Amino acid sequence: MEEAGGSSPALPDDLITVAASLEIFHAAALVHDDVIDNSDTRRGRPAAHRALEAAHRSRHWVGDAGAFGRSGAILLGDLLVAWSDDLLEEGLAAASPARASAARREYAIMRREVTIGQFLDIAEESAYVTEPDDEHAARALRVASLKSARYSIQQPLAIGAALAGADADQQAALAAFGHPVGMAFQLRDDVLGVFGDESETGKPSGDDLREGKRTVLIAYAREGLGSTARRVMDELIGDPALDAQQIASLQQTIIETGALERVEHLIADYAREGERSLSGARLGNAAVGGLRDLARAATVRTT
Amino acid sequence: MEEAGGSSPALPDDLITVAASLEIFHAAALVHDDVIDNSDTRRGRPAAHRALEAAHRSRHWVGDAGAFGRSGAILLGDLLVAWSDDLLEEGLAAASPARASAARREYAIMRREVTIGQFLDIAEESAYVTEPDDEHAARALRVASLKSARYSIQQPLAIGAALAGADADQQAALAAFGHPVGMAFQLRDDVLGVFGDESETGKPSGDDLREGKRTVLIAYAREGLGSTARRVMDELIGDPALDAQQIASLQQTIIETGALERVEHLIADYAREGERSLSGARLGNAAVGGLRDLARAATVRTT
Repeated sequence: MEEAGGSSPALPDDLITVAASLEIFHAAALVHDDVIDNSDTRRGRPAAHRALEAAHRSRHWVGDAGAFGRSGAILLGDLLVAWSDDLLEEGLAAASPARASAARREYAIMRREVTIGQFLDIAEESAYVTEPDDEHAARALRVASLKSARYSIQQPLAIGAALAGADADQQAALAAFGHPVGMAFQLRDDVLGVFGDESETGKPSGDDLREGKRTVLIAYAREGLGSTARRVMDELIGDPALDAQQIASLQQTIIETGALERVEHLIADYAREGERSLSGARLGNAAVGGLRDLARAATVRTT
Repeated sequence: MEEAGGSSPALPDDLITVAASLEIFHAAALVHDDVIDNSDTRRGRPAAHRALEAAHRSRHWVGDAGAFGRSGAILLGDLLVAWSDDLLEEGLAAASPARASAARREYAIMRREVTIGQFLDIAEESAYVTEPDDEHAARALRVASLKSARYSIQQPLAIGAALAGADADQQAALAAFGHPVGMAFQLRDDVLGVFGDESETGKPSGDDLREGKRTVLIAYAREGLGSTARRVMDELIGDPALDAQQIASLQQTIIETGALERVEHLIADYAREGERSLSGARLGNAAVGGLRDLARAATVRTT
């Protein structure tokens, strides 16, 4: 309660504002993502475009409620991006020009890369048929790097570090930690997207299969199949009407080809790589402790 | 040719970079707008989502080409917004912190307002049935103020002026000029959206009628009609399948109710208000000359 009066030091407040800017940017990305994926729910509640669609209906407005929901959500995402920028500037207002400019640069990289990663993600869903089978895993890893590893972990660390005046060695150590941990985070997400429990993830089990996400898990599974079985798998993946039995059969295939085990190994390798990068880094004990917790939360999670 | 070598003074180059940032932001808004309005063309060429849809088809990718086009265009718009921000920062890099911060503030206002204006615009298309008839014109003017007057003219002038270190009086004079000229610009756009010649505007004649835009022109026309004729008009406006004869009949109604004449008067009033605000303003002769040209180009145009 005492801290609420404004007696806390200036730096933490500014850091919280910058972190809020990232959170609002993330909300913007999710709102657009849900339109793109045509998702009904987000975090167990109606996706923004569905909520707007419902508002249109309940007010007895005219025209296509679904189209209004999607259009409104595109603009809501745009508005959230604008708000995120405003919060970033607010959080940087008291920083030195050099630190503010470094933080803005890392933020700009994050925004550009995640958007490109999202585009490659949807492009792979459509384009995989025209790419050689043995390149699928590498392409999926590239998407994971841009849309997750760099976006969710590496760049947020780089922004915070820039704001704290980190030197080049410290930034390099954080990048060497953040990227593999972020990769492990996305690969864990891929596993949960196929095998996750709806009561824990808030998303229907097998959702990634219905959406047709071309993850490393799927690339590995295809590598382990003959051409006929592969064709059957390709026909099922991306069908929004997949039923529970079809999902279970795909899950079984992914396990039997050894793809799940390969991805679990990859997750463990990435997690170890992240862990190793912390030893010898000049980051302070409290920071290293926090990063270890982050790595565990990102890779061992069930939701 | 001599200027391309980098010998031109720093300020003009930076100004051009900031202007490019506005242009790229505008491109982003148009890409999202074309998805929202389901427009096939932009400036006489395929809209971005249609171009992406065609690319999907020509490459024989799998899945729904139309959905891919829309999703890709949402992300393209997001990427353009990010690029616009990058250009803004590049253009502000050499400015004093006070001027850079003032320019960022005006830019942030512009982004927020145009997005809210766009949302109100699509909301009015659906919600007008639940609003009192005599409030339609005022609501349409509010949309025009946010999505056009402030966005297209007032705020761009404010950004340039902030960068040039304008004082409060100069900023106030530019706002007093920019807002009415921007209103006239949008009202001219409304007239062209109903009566414009496709060979000049690049958009099919009567496009606003098919889209169901609830402009001041439509609000005035409805004010001039009895309730039965009003209902007939409401049923036609927003029907994407309107044929040439129905468009001609709606145009005729808009003329006969005096709505077109009222809007032309309003355009002339706004243009005069803008003109008046320039006399006595401390803005320099060259600037005032440029602003007069801008006002004429915005309100007397046919495309």
